[in-house]
Amino acid sequence: MIEPFDDTYFMKKALQEAEMAFEKGEIPVGAVVVIDNRVIARGHNLTETLTDVTAHAEMQAITAASNFLGGKYLKNCTLYVTLEPCQMCAGALYWSQISNIVYGARDLERGCINLNTKLHPKTVIKGGVMEVEASELLKRFFIERRNLN
Amino acid sequence: MIEPFDDTYFMKKALQEAEMAFEKGEIPVGAVVVIDNRVIARGHNLTETLTDVTAHAEMQAITAASNFLGGKYLKNCTLYVTLEPCQMCAGALYWSQISNIVYGARDLERGCINLNTKLHPKTVIKGGVMEVEASELLKRFFIERRNLN
Repeated sequence: MIEPFDDTYFMKKALQEAEMAFEKGEIPVGAVVVIDNRVIARGHNLTETLTDVTAHAEMQAITAASNFLGGKYLKNCTLYVTLEPCQMCAGALYWSQISNIVYGARDLERGCINLNTKLHPKTVIKGGVMEVEASELLKRFFIERRNLN
Repeated sequence: MIEPFDDTYFMKKALQEAEMAFEKGEIPVGAVVVIDNRVIARGHNLTETLTDVTAHAEMQAITAASNFLGGKYLKNCTLYVTLEPCQMCAGALYWSQISNIVYGARDLERGCINLNTKLHPKTVIKGGVMEVEASELLKRFFIERRNLN
């Protein structure tokens, strides 16, 4: 049986969000929240547009998912995000008690893994899904931005 | 010369915000952002009201301060918050490059100090300002909530 709803399927949705950030001149990171194979929330980085450091893709997706569910806990949900979450976003995910975090590219300097941000004991984190695509989008953004300056 | 604008003066403003959270049935934490002895942003915990784990006092104060300043960096600003920031809020403060964080009560279990959340190298953090008042408000909240259940 073909399973259309795998990690790659949902990470592509997150990458579409990242592309939207790219088009707005934002560092291209995108996220979706999924429950029962259904996307219930989307977000992309809007820190420049909103002049707000808290406007990361994950933060918006968490808020939107809670809004959809009518509750603040994201139990049985999976967050797909194109870049490993930072301390802020991992801290928010801790509070949300989300079941799964799936990320694309690693962020060795500012990501939650090397900075040892505490996740909720119920949360499972996994990386490397469409890592090449996520990294290349970020690289393309920084090369284009360098050429503009 | 009397200096009316000391840490206690501004922490009282943060405590007023915490009282507002208390009245709404929220865990009573409040925050203000100050620049040049002027309060430019306020926030209090609204996680229950908004059913959103990201709605901590500090997050709202950061967003409001950036909005007031028209820029996302909070250089030369001080955040006063009645409780030691959690990983999420400390992570947001990292991104904001805020100059000073002044908190009231410690949070040994979920606070950024024991969890080793990375702050920006330009940020100075200091605690214990009106610690007793901030702690007692929190204690009173949890006692009242226990009695209601």
